[in-house]
Amino acid sequence: MDDMLMNGIGEKLTLHEYAPSGNCYKIRLTAALLGVPIARRHYDIVKGETRTEAFLAEVNANGRIPVLQIGDRFLPESNAACWWLASRSPLVPDDRFDQADLLRWMFFEQYNHEPNVATIRFWKAFVGYDNLTETQLMLLPGKVAAGEAALKLMDEHLAARDWLVGGRMTLADICLYAYTHVADEGGFDLAAYPNVSAWLARLAGQPGYVGIGD
Amino acid sequence: MDDMLMNGIGEKLTLHEYAPSGNCYKIRLTAALLGVPIARRHYDIVKGETRTEAFLAEVNANGRIPVLQIGDRFLPESNAACWWLASRSPLVPDDRFDQADLLRWMFFEQYNHEPNVATIRFWKAFVGYDNLTETQLMLLPGKVAAGEAALKLMDEHLAARDWLVGGRMTLADICLYAYTHVADEGGFDLAAYPNVSAWLARLAGQPGYVGIGD
Repeated sequence: MDDMLMNGIGEKLTLHEYAPSGNCYKIRLTAALLGVPIARRHYDIVKGETRTEAFLAEVNANGRIPVLQIGDRFLPESNAACWWLASRSPLVPDDRFDQADLLRWMFFEQYNHEPNVATIRFWKAFVGYDNLTETQLMLLPGKVAAGEAALKLMDEHLAARDWLVGGRMTLADICLYAYTHVADEGGFDLAAYPNVSAWLARLAGQPGYVGIGD
Repeated sequence: MDDMLMNGIGEKLTLHEYAPSGNCYKIRLTAALLGVPIARRHYDIVKGETRTEAFLAEVNANGRIPVLQIGDRFLPESNAACWWLASRSPLVPDDRFDQADLLRWMFFEQYNHEPNVATIRFWKAFVGYDNLTETQLMLLPGKVAAGEAALKLMDEHLAARDWLVGGRMTLADICLYAYTHVADEGGFDLAAYPNVSAWLARLAGQPGYVGIGD
């Protein structure tokens, strides 16, 4: 079926992605834990392959990946794609409060965690410290501090529980796992967050787990 | 009942908020359009009232508002609070794709729109241009451009439709309305986005609508 595969409900799924991105990985990890196959189409973001006219017109007017293609429909935003995959599965609780609390952690991920933990990783491990602009260098200390605050908040929350929401693994854990488990590539010391470290190991031990490099 | 009120399902709701914040307003607007009463408790963020030990321990360890208090439980993140209010109402579609697409716009709001459109408004209308730090002045042009790109994306999407998702007003419209309708306070020219302007007027005409200053 070329670059298309079928999932359990008869839709063809293709992930438009840049594999090392945690935002792309979290979609692959959600699908893997659910046992849903997804075809993958690679774009080199450094070469601007998501800013071409064809990409903007067909895949995402926002010029960003990941985008989950479901049949002939395109769904941007990593956490929305994860939601599509996990909705109607045990990864999204039915309870009204727990479901909103799950989204609370997913919005925290995009607002407080990703712009700091993921951006610092991208700058240090992909762009390279010596290539950072003056503005990036000026932002660096604030983003490191905000990333540490996000990890500390998670560590305190996980002190009394195994999972972020509702007593079992949910989509919130998967979405926050993606960039947390590679935070050391941005210079964050995960050993300073023992509850987070234990939670990372717990998630990596789940049946169906795949790594970011798989 | 003091600062507590009952909604239709028997929970006491209190919004911990700073009224001029669009993130707080979107919760009030969602509740108003659903006909759900919410008590309001004000904090002066400029005086650091959300960073006190009591606030961090009881309301939100993240030191941020809004927080929706539901009985004795606390729900941070504006879009998660809106989701709690609107779930099981027509503002959140049941259709699997539409529901994920709704979240796509809500994540876009927190990642691409709020950090630019809302931040520029806060800096210009609340902090004051003359009080901006060197780092903020350096970030200003990029954030203006990113805010304009977010408004342009919405304008193009709304060229062919009345609402963002699924052919009728949903929570995505409410969440993006909050900061878009006051974008002019940050210097954005809403007249340059005629489809957005028409959509703003359409939403403001809905039964139950309340303004940000109400």
